[in-house]
Amino acid sequence: MALYGARKGYNAGLSIGEVNLSRGFHVMAGPCSVESEEQVHRTAEHLAGRGVRILRGGAFKPRTSPYSFQGLGEPGLKLLSDAAARMGMLTVSEVMDVETLPLVAGYIDILQVGARNMQNYSLLKALAKQSKPVLLKRGMAATIEEFLLAAEYVLQGNERVILCERGVRSFDPLTRNMLDLSGVALLREMSHLPVIVDLSHSTGRTDIIAPLARACVALGAEGMMVEVHPEPAAALCDGVQALSFDDASRLLADITPWVALRAKLQADRFPLSLPKRNATAG
Amino acid sequence: MALYGARKGYNAGLSIGEVNLSRGFHVMAGPCSVESEEQVHRTAEHLAGRGVRILRGGAFKPRTSPYSFQGLGEPGLKLLSDAAARMGMLTVSEVMDVETLPLVAGYIDILQVGARNMQNYSLLKALAKQSKPVLLKRGMAATIEEFLLAAEYVLQGNERVILCERGVRSFDPLTRNMLDLSGVALLREMSHLPVIVDLSHSTGRTDIIAPLARACVALGAEGMMVEVHPEPAAALCDGVQALSFDDASRLLADITPWVALRAKLQADRFPLSLPKRNATAG
Amino acid sequence: MALYGARKGYNAGLSIGEVNLSRGFHVMAGPCSVESEEQVHRTAEHLAGRGVRILRGGAFKPRTSPYSFQGLGEPGLKLLSDAAARMGMLTVSEVMDVETLPLVAGYIDILQVGARNMQNYSLLKALAKQSKPVLLKRGMAATIEEFLLAAEYVLQGNERVILCERGVRSFDPLTRNMLDLSGVALLREMSHLPVIVDLSHSTGRTDIIAPLARACVALGAEGMMVEVHPEPAAALCDGVQALSFDDASRLLADITPWVALRAKLQADRFPLSLPKRNATAG
Amino acid sequence: MALYGARKGYNAGLSIGEVNLSRGFHVMAGPCSVESEEQVHRTAEHLAGRGVRILRGGAFKPRTSPYSFQGLGEPGLKLLSDAAARMGMLTVSEVMDVETLPLVAGYIDILQVGARNMQNYSLLKALAKQSKPVLLKRGMAATIEEFLLAAEYVLQGNERVILCERGVRSFDPLTRNMLDLSGVALLREMSHLPVIVDLSHSTGRTDIIAPLARACVALGAEGMMVEVHPEPAAALCDGVQALSFDDASRLLADITPWVALRAKLQADRFPLSLPKRNATAG
Repeated sequence: MALYGARKGYNAGLSIGEVNLSRGFHVMAGPCSVESEEQVHRTAEHLAGRGVRILRGGAFKPRTSPYSFQGLGEPGLKLLSDAAARMGMLTVSEVMDVETLPLVAGYIDILQVGARNMQNYSLLKALAKQSKPVLLKRGMAATIEEFLLAAEYVLQGNERVILCERGVRSFDPLTRNMLDLSGVALLREMSHLPVIVDLSHSTGRTDIIAPLARACVALGAEGMMVEVHPEPAAALCDGVQALSFDDASRLLADITPWVALRAKLQADRFPLSLPKRNATAG
Repeated sequence: MALYGARKGYNAGLSIGEVNLSRGFHVMAGPCSVESEEQVHRTAEHLAGRGVRILRGGAFKPRTSPYSFQGLGEPGLKLLSDAAARMGMLTVSEVMDVETLPLVAGYIDILQVGARNMQNYSLLKALAKQSKPVLLKRGMAATIEEFLLAAEYVLQGNERVILCERGVRSFDPLTRNMLDLSGVALLREMSHLPVIVDLSHSTGRTDIIAPLARACVALGAEGMMVEVHPEPAAALCDGVQALSFDDASRLLADITPWVALRAKLQADRFPLSLPKRNATAG
Repeated sequence: MALYGARKGYNAGLSIGEVNLSRGFHVMAGPCSVESEEQVHRTAEHLAGRGVRILRGGAFKPRTSPYSFQGLGEPGLKLLSDAAARMGMLTVSEVMDVETLPLVAGYIDILQVGARNMQNYSLLKALAKQSKPVLLKRGMAATIEEFLLAAEYVLQGNERVILCERGVRSFDPLTRNMLDLSGVALLREMSHLPVIVDLSHSTGRTDIIAPLARACVALGAEGMMVEVHPEPAAALCDGVQALSFDDASRLLADITPWVALRAKLQADRFPLSLPKRNATAG
Repeated sequence: MALYGARKGYNAGLSIGEVNLSRGFHVMAGPCSVESEEQVHRTAEHLAGRGVRILRGGAFKPRTSPYSFQGLGEPGLKLLSDAAARMGMLTVSEVMDVETLPLVAGYIDILQVGARNMQNYSLLKALAKQSKPVLLKRGMAATIEEFLLAAEYVLQGNERVILCERGVRSFDPLTRNMLDLSGVALLREMSHLPVIVDLSHSTGRTDIIAPLARACVALGAEGMMVEVHPEPAAALCDGVQALSFDDASRLLADITPWVALRAKLQADRFPLSLPKRNATAG
């Protein structure tokens, strides 16, 4: 476990443009899939107006079934990139393979590796050889150690890695996955990489996002990712977990005093780290 | 699922003595097992001095192996009760079966049902027929619905039920169990019963308790349970997850500004609840 | 782990009446719940006619919801016992608590402890103090070691323990639980207790029971438990996983040549045990 | 779910060279990693002498840590291919990415997709566009439906797909993964693709392989995969789960009468399929 320890400090100041991901609480928001110019422009405008600086949206979609909507491809990247540029936002979008990596990297600021590809080592090695920052999602049933070792593949050549917890497989059908916030706390103890929490894919529902978002702020996560769609009921992908514009506005207002408290404490003594006890007692 | 819905409101004011568990953030702390008069008195004194009002400690211990320490039994209950009385604290301790229920209820204020007994229906039915409040721990791999249905057994006759999330079985060996904070958010959406989070049994380690405690506050949980021991390395049970007195003091100081923020917001608009979207879109 | 090792040999000849559970392949079959005299008598008659010697049926039912059918109680025990006696069969039925243990033991030959009670130590200790054989079901998410340690509680005073694998919690909704046949192989390596596989509660469906029953025979399990009902669609409990009389007849015919092969090999060299390799290599 | 149903029949006669994978019980065996000419030639010779017709061995190894042995690459493919050719065996080896697919396909008969790549859709689509048969391993925590949908990606263009169960993530540390034999039974109900069981990666230990191999035969699986190494303690990869030559010989002898029984029954009425009951009863 000395591996990631040795890397500590590397990313203490992971900055992308004017955004320093290692400080403060960052919101990455936008639709699951880029569907149309109007959809993505309206979303970008709404979010930018409420302080969101990173726009998410899928153009290449890994789908469980070959018969599901697979994304717009390059036109989707262009729409996302244009919408973000107009609002002065950064973009994050998924790269699915080595072949399309140059294409995606030509449009997008932060390259996302999806949960299904967390151990796609060929892709990780290719991402180590380029300079765009990488947002690595935790695999569906990856341990924290496996997650950090996957990051290590990218860190071989590219220090700008962002970890993203998105829930793990569980037995409870009420949520899409089981959000592992103790895993987030462990990632922050074991590594200095920024940690983002994807609240939409983990919970798969909208009604418990607000309390979990506040938990992420208090926990010390560097940010959260949420899906926002102008008309969730009409979304081509995962509409059941997308926030409406109104939901998103209320969510962002809800976390504001918590983010402010954290900023105030952070200058001082946040976060507290208690010592780990060794396994000597019964 | 209308069942628990129908119960909503019942416990809006679950009070035990002067402690209203439905308001504010409550800390239940103390040793895993009651071991000696000195141990439990010193612990009670330390915790009471930092504002903790509920003292925990096991006297009847359900142990995986028949060869492990099984607890002091009645003398342990008496030690716990005396120490709490001296400090003006309430007590919480586990009741393992119908036979010893009257004995435990004779000493203890809040009767805990352990994870192994969450579906011990004979015990739940007996608890429904007496008046002491019941702290029901979630089973090792119980769904949220099963957890609420187990509570329903007690609610048949006793409205004073407190739910306790304590982590569920998972594949990651870094934590003893996987803490399910989205489950806590669900419990708070689906029921009005107070929800307490056991951070010691869920994580099984001390170094990530502080961030998770802050998360519990921000999330809206009614409280947390943590194990505290004067000398963790010498504990007869689960010492590796026990906080020292110094750890406990720092933890309690760490959450203070977060509890204060919540109290300030609570008068006003806390917590935010976003609407649930129905599963109509792709 | 020396614990159960030390017990090896104890049950090498676990016999109940004329049935030696440590030899051959035993079928325990019958309805989930005893519902009526006609139901249980018809079932017993059908099964006895096809060589089944152990009749199962629930009279005290542990149900997730307090609003589900809870079983007939003592009249159910009597019906089961009478039906078995008429056919010269043994009975197995669940005992849920210490209070009703004498009642159940007064009617039933093999006392079943359900998955929810695997770590109900008060019940296990009471079962150690009486002489009826105990069929202990594996807990919903119990490790093999925890399962054996639970058995150890009964073995403190009662050597006649039968282990029953019934699947564990998993993420796949296609089966009710995930049947763990490698766990069965481990139980047979680590202990000499007979191991029975409950195919109905593990799979929760009828269409894959035949191949899994053959697997149990070949694996070396001492037997299987299946639910059989004269009219599955009308069952008061778990009808979806119950075999009809015709299904049961075909299942029993299907395993016959496999049981015969095993009997032939068993006299000779069955089962093969390969050495365990220690964790020394990369 | 009609998807795979529609495909039924396609692979009823999946043949590779003279080996018909849809009939009989096939053993795929060999080292985890190809390490040297001597290692792989000796292994091939030993196995071929006992009737094994498919030689496995890794040349491109997906490893959790970037610091672990990553395989010999092309020289490994050549060694494996030469050893198999000398013994008249087929080969199976992992292909990790689209880039090296032509290279691997140039040497190997059956292209294996590892568990980590089960949802690497770019790779699956590339495999659909070539004609070599594909052995698709189940993802670490994939449901049976997700597994079949992943196969569907390959089936879009290549009908020769073999499914391989290799255990899923679980909470029990005694085995590396939890072998899901009810999943194998489901795969055989829901699809006509041949199903192979990897006993080495699922269990991660040697001592329970024999009973599970017999279970696979009786269940109806089309074959099993096991790791065999001339000197397990010196293996560069996963030595703890590798069978020695002697172990392998004994294992193959052990399953022989079971395979013979199955062949005898298969001409006749094997396997039995009972009807599925619909979820109408309580």
